[in-house]
Amino acid sequence: MKCELISVGTELLVGDTLNTNVRYLSRELSLLGIHVYYHTTVGDNPERLEEAVKIAFDRSDLIITTGGLGPTQDDLTKEIIAKMFNRRLIEDQQVKEDILAYFTNRDYPLTANNLKQALVPENGLVLRNDWGTAPGILLDQSGTKIIMLPGPPGEMIHLFEQLVVPLIWKKETQRVMSRYYNLSDIGESEVEDRLLDIIDIQDNPTIATYAKMGEVQIRVTANGISENEMNHLLDQYEKLVFDRFGRHIYSQSKEALKDVVCKLLLEKKITIATAESCTGGLIAAQLTEFAGISKIFSMGLITYSNQTKVDLLGVRQATIEKYGAVSEEVAKEMCEGLLKRSQAKCAVAVTGFAGPEGGGIDKPVGLVYIALHYNNHTEVSSWHFKGERVAVREKVAVKVFNLIRFAITEAFPKRSD
Amino acid sequence: MKCELISVGTELLVGDTLNTNVRYLSRELSLLGIHVYYHTTVGDNPERLEEAVKIAFDRSDLIITTGGLGPTQDDLTKEIIAKMFNRRLIEDQQVKEDILAYFTNRDYPLTANNLKQALVPENGLVLRNDWGTAPGILLDQSGTKIIMLPGPPGEMIHLFEQLVVPLIWKKETQRVMSRYYNLSDIGESEVEDRLLDIIDIQDNPTIATYAKMGEVQIRVTANGISENEMNHLLDQYEKLVFDRFGRHIYSQSKEALKDVVCKLLLEKKITIATAESCTGGLIAAQLTEFAGISKIFSMGLITYSNQTKVDLLGVRQATIEKYGAVSEEVAKEMCEGLLKRSQAKCAVAVTGFAGPEGGGIDKPVGLVYIALHYNNHTEVSSWHFKGERVAVREKVAVKVFNLIRFAITEAFPKRSD
Repeated sequence: MKCELISVGTELLVGDTLNTNVRYLSRELSLLGIHVYYHTTVGDNPERLEEAVKIAFDRSDLIITTGGLGPTQDDLTKEIIAKMFNRRLIEDQQVKEDILAYFTNRDYPLTANNLKQALVPENGLVLRNDWGTAPGILLDQSGTKIIMLPGPPGEMIHLFEQLVVPLIWKKETQRVMSRYYNLSDIGESEVEDRLLDIIDIQDNPTIATYAKMGEVQIRVTANGISENEMNHLLDQYEKLVFDRFGRHIYSQSKEALKDVVCKLLLEKKITIATAESCTGGLIAAQLTEFAGISKIFSMGLITYSNQTKVDLLGVRQATIEKYGAVSEEVAKEMCEGLLKRSQAKCAVAVTGFAGPEGGGIDKPVGLVYIALHYNNHTEVSSWHFKGERVAVREKVAVKVFNLIRFAITEAFPKRSD
Repeated sequence: MKCELISVGTELLVGDTLNTNVRYLSRELSLLGIHVYYHTTVGDNPERLEEAVKIAFDRSDLIITTGGLGPTQDDLTKEIIAKMFNRRLIEDQQVKEDILAYFTNRDYPLTANNLKQALVPENGLVLRNDWGTAPGILLDQSGTKIIMLPGPPGEMIHLFEQLVVPLIWKKETQRVMSRYYNLSDIGESEVEDRLLDIIDIQDNPTIATYAKMGEVQIRVTANGISENEMNHLLDQYEKLVFDRFGRHIYSQSKEALKDVVCKLLLEKKITIATAESCTGGLIAAQLTEFAGISKIFSMGLITYSNQTKVDLLGVRQATIEKYGAVSEEVAKEMCEGLLKRSQAKCAVAVTGFAGPEGGGIDKPVGLVYIALHYNNHTEVSSWHFKGERVAVREKVAVKVFNLIRFAITEAFPKRSD
């Protein structure tokens, strides 16, 4: 099935709005096994909208439009498409009631133009919108499906998930099923390298890798008729992925590494404290983004200057003078001082050069020492991260969360089977 | 001039990548007075790419493509467009040297396919790319301009700003000029309200407002033939904007509030320290994102638990018991303790309920106390921020930066004239 997405809205063409709708729909449709071949965006202009729908109608089997279903004069999608295919607009009693209820429940004043949203092209299937006032509409036009969805992302996603996916799912006999594996502490090129033998011969399932800041995701997608059949295919690959990447796999969901680590800490009731130099509070800020973390996190120290390292963490002046503030020895003393002060079970201390200044020939920008204490053991590791200041700091944080994960659990993560 | 943007890349059609390029280009082109009428996205597929260019060529005067200029077999933009318009691909000596230098300087191994990027369609104008290896290319085809830019946003923006804008600027007789005013500590609806009389009668210049997390931007755009003429129009509006929003204007550039504040602190050599409860290090993390901040920032304390507030900041146990950890009194004592410990000229302490837990009837989620000391004076203010945990924390940080700005400078920011 060839699919085309048409976004309608002048706000997209003047750059006021970032088009997150097409990204969302493209990803979800791909997962359903539907190939999206084109994205087109036009403004709230009748001629250009009609032209875009015409082009799409000639080359695609499924057209999904977003936007232009609202109550104002600018909102034209439904009107243009109805006119193109000679369908009258008929007031839908159910939609009218939905709209009236929407306004009554919220105590908003109803204006006349809101009832324009109750008009539905003849023989159109209404996709009732309980998040807003503009319903979605599905038309079947000589075998080509045209689905019109509202533009606000919340309403669009809600309608797509609740009503469009089941429609697509029902029509397609050939289905698609995916599993995800989120990896940390390993680069995308190494992941690909370790999968090359499979990627080269891939057919069903297919396997793909995606890189994001310091992390990699593997997606394995099977297609088939029955769920059992697809699960069977995916199970075989799952075994293989775990054999090859074991400890690097930190989750099999959309969960971020930091959230996985926070959950682990909370589950295991491991108190944690942080002492940061180059990351300047970033690690603590990420920890405390997690609701409920106060049960195990009570203290974070940002010791940006040498004097603060001495005053707050008891780092010895002599150690700084001898080895420099960015050194294994200072990282270790920071961690020990933090441990004493916080009485936490897990303590992490970071010192490094985030750049662009600092560093030198022996100790370049991007050099970072991480000291981690857990279970009566302190380990200091050194790393060299590439990139700009902001990227270096982000990468340090990812590394720290991963080191914590390794330290507190060397058991493999649970498999989904 | 009718402009169309064509994005090339399968990663966009499967939803792996969010298309930020079209948003950027649309906004910038609009500011230059160029009307963008269409966005089209196709994958790395020769037939569909050719079809998209053909459609665009028939209806637009300016076509800007992004993506598909890289070294791999997938990258087809240049090849397809050259073929469509019967232009040979010729190796450009300068581009070849640029590519060789790029690899030599970075000590990367050069692979044969990289030199494919030195091929330029006959009579194409090379837009040299000093941020990457794929140059941009401008073709004039029977009066229609086709500009090909690389897909990575950093390179694309760099080339657009440095090389494309001057080209466009030179061609257009009717020009556009904009000025920006970034406001904090005021809501978008209030900004609009205070501008309603002007918005209602706007013609030239036009005035528009944009909201982002805790901040508002006003854009004033004039069009005209001469720079003098436009500057004259803008000057009149500038006076009006300053009269109405004075102290709320923190910058007239793309600079973020936090960067403006960091610069001010550095310029005025004001040392600063932070004590954070609900924001958990976010304020310090934002401060330390600014390169060179170590000159004035030496210490940040994250006192998440009551005990840490007592131990590190000398907050009295009795104060916490009497007023609660989220109170004006505790914020004040946190600030005083921080001041004593850090000896900083400016000290900021934050305590509040970020949610979703905590709070109560008297003190709801989103209630935050901010204590700020500067110039021998400590002021505690209380705020009620709405939204989810992450949003509340972000809004607190914006507010803190703004309070610091007000505290250290009550002079109006410099005008551009």
